[in-house]
Amino acid sequence: MTLNEKALQLHEEWNGKLNTTSKCEVKSREDLALAYTPGVAEPCKVIAEDPEAAYKYTLKANTIAVVSDGSAVLGLGNIGARAAMPVMEGKCVLFKEFGGVNAFPICLDTQDTEEIIRTVVNIAPAFGGINLEDISAPRCFEIETRLKEILDIPVFHDDQHGTAIVVLAGVINALKVTGKNKEDCRIVINGAGSAGIAIAKLLLSYGFKHITLCGRKGILSKDTPTLNWMQKEMMEVTNLENAQGSLADAMKGSDIFIGVSGPNVVSQEMVASMNSDSILFAMANPVPEIMPDLAKAAGARIVGTGRSDFPNQVNNVVAFPGIFKGALEGRAPQITEDMKLAAALAIAGLVSDEELNEDNILPQAFDPRVCEAVSNAVKAHIK
Amino acid sequence: MTLNEKALQLHEEWNGKLNTTSKCEVKSREDLALAYTPGVAEPCKVIAEDPEAAYKYTLKANTIAVVSDGSAVLGLGNIGARAAMPVMEGKCVLFKEFGGVNAFPICLDTQDTEEIIRTVVNIAPAFGGINLEDISAPRCFEIETRLKEILDIPVFHDDQHGTAIVVLAGVINALKVTGKNKEDCRIVINGAGSAGIAIAKLLLSYGFKHITLCGRKGILSKDTPTLNWMQKEMMEVTNLENAQGSLADAMKGSDIFIGVSGPNVVSQEMVASMNSDSILFAMANPVPEIMPDLAKAAGARIVGTGRSDFPNQVNNVVAFPGIFKGALEGRAPQITEDMKLAAALAIAGLVSDEELNEDNILPQAFDPRVCEAVSNAVKAHIK
Repeated sequence: MTLNEKALQLHEEWNGKLNTTSKCEVKSREDLALAYTPGVAEPCKVIAEDPEAAYKYTLKANTIAVVSDGSAVLGLGNIGARAAMPVMEGKCVLFKEFGGVNAFPICLDTQDTEEIIRTVVNIAPAFGGINLEDISAPRCFEIETRLKEILDIPVFHDDQHGTAIVVLAGVINALKVTGKNKEDCRIVINGAGSAGIAIAKLLLSYGFKHITLCGRKGILSKDTPTLNWMQKEMMEVTNLENAQGSLADAMKGSDIFIGVSGPNVVSQEMVASMNSDSILFAMANPVPEIMPDLAKAAGARIVGTGRSDFPNQVNNVVAFPGIFKGALEGRAPQITEDMKLAAALAIAGLVSDEELNEDNILPQAFDPRVCEAVSNAVKAHIK
Repeated sequence: MTLNEKALQLHEEWNGKLNTTSKCEVKSREDLALAYTPGVAEPCKVIAEDPEAAYKYTLKANTIAVVSDGSAVLGLGNIGARAAMPVMEGKCVLFKEFGGVNAFPICLDTQDTEEIIRTVVNIAPAFGGINLEDISAPRCFEIETRLKEILDIPVFHDDQHGTAIVVLAGVINALKVTGKNKEDCRIVINGAGSAGIAIAKLLLSYGFKHITLCGRKGILSKDTPTLNWMQKEMMEVTNLENAQGSLADAMKGSDIFIGVSGPNVVSQEMVASMNSDSILFAMANPVPEIMPDLAKAAGARIVGTGRSDFPNQVNNVVAFPGIFKGALEGRAPQITEDMKLAAALAIAGLVSDEELNEDNILPQAFDPRVCEAVSNAVKAHIK
């Protein structure tokens, strides 16, 4: 049986990967009177007087929604709300298993930006945080920005920021291995959707100066006619030389390549044209932009992918459970840029100087220290 | 410590009465590959091809939303979404503990009818059913009716239909005890909100002919100036003689009194004015319309209340868990009138002729046969 066949069979056995389970026994009339009427009126009254008490008496304290409209699911594209459910349930499972955070999937039967925003605002009272997932760009940017403005609970689009945090963690350690310094590094990001743009922003926040975003037709510049509004904004802070050309042109003389694009779009020639000690994160799934052995043979010093069967897996699971665990425990009203930077540094810091090498720049997904370290980093930056 | 103090303390300890728990272990890379990427893409693809497969591979099969806008919570009134959470969590606990049905609370930060409808439609893909709760009348009627038209999953306003089902079950058995027959019975329902109107409708469906609804100012008739649209509709099928007057006037010569109103609004004189072998369901909580001992002393034959410390407790918990268990297991697209009638008969039927007496017309909330009997009754009426 292939992995895919086994996955399908298991999903049928599970018939939903989550249960909702009661924390309170209801075996007697007294139990019923305490967990339900008439006793339940007491916490209701307290919360009606003081809305903050919801964090004391309800699951808002420790539960988030994993919200998707099914418009950009994995590599499958726009498959809609129902078909997105297995992914969102899986994400909820990871929140619980890796972070101890209760999470419930909300798959939306609309792909209208305003409708999504209103719906999430309307359901927010029950939740302590909102994890947005697999919503296509550029709508995802507006939805997240607007929800952050409206809501007083953390809103986090994991495809953007989870990815960006782990990439930055990997880059931080890759710089240590190669001795490069961030001010001089030339970075090429291939893929100018939600992940690519979020990575660019976080790398800029961290202090990188020279970033070039590429799309399907090559380098994005102010002259590219097809830019969406977010890509236009990014042209103010990336490709400051207004370079034109192909991905191959962009990669010449660069130090770091970050791929959130498609399979096999990077050739060995392109890698060979990079500066020495080049660093590649080829994260297209399941087939990377270039296979690690080919990249290494062409001169790359460090190669990371999204896959667990190669070294240096760039896996969001080292970020998002700890992010929300920390945000919920510290009652953060938002996930700030400072928290993301701190989370990346915390992840990078888990690889000790002795362990750090070309093939070990990131902690393992199952490293039990990761979630706690990220959570503490987030909590330390709550204002 | 009083019950209320203990309830508050327990709610703080629970800090939310529900957990979301994973059905699948994620302890290894292979686990991760099966429950999440890349394996999870398989059920996604199958559902994208065939939306019905969501019932095979996702929690839609066995999970409902408990939806409230916090506008009519218990006897507390319009306390809003956050303050309604302890009740909705409690309801979810009861769905799980009594019916084995996964349930998640959705408390809405809006009380606009259209907005509520849109929001529930938007979040419906994740759910196999929608239990509406504590939404004020007459908005609750439109919200439920419209959602039933739009959605292909069962929508059920428990304050209406759960109450009506259990009242009908009690009435069916009360008729057996008293030897009254439904065609001749004169029924007075005090309280013309969601519960009162739903009770009237279900009693009419069952075959009762003479029902009078009363509001705060007495008998509702076509001439009552303050009727809402639903009450106007009800004037076509109740109070056919267009009687006018007070609650006391209505109760004169009646056989059955059903109270979903307030404390102590029925006097012993009113009970004494009823026909012989009178039946009273005085369900105001926590203080009934008349205390059972007073009603009995005034001549009532059978008295039920909402309380567990008196005989004949009318408790929705004997209905709603089995209703949704049956609807989900049988994949019912709706909860129909037939199902509600069948559920009431099933509940009534659990009290055997030997057990049946004036003080035992309904099964106990904790009777383990109840949920199965209701569930089977619902399933038997799926078309």
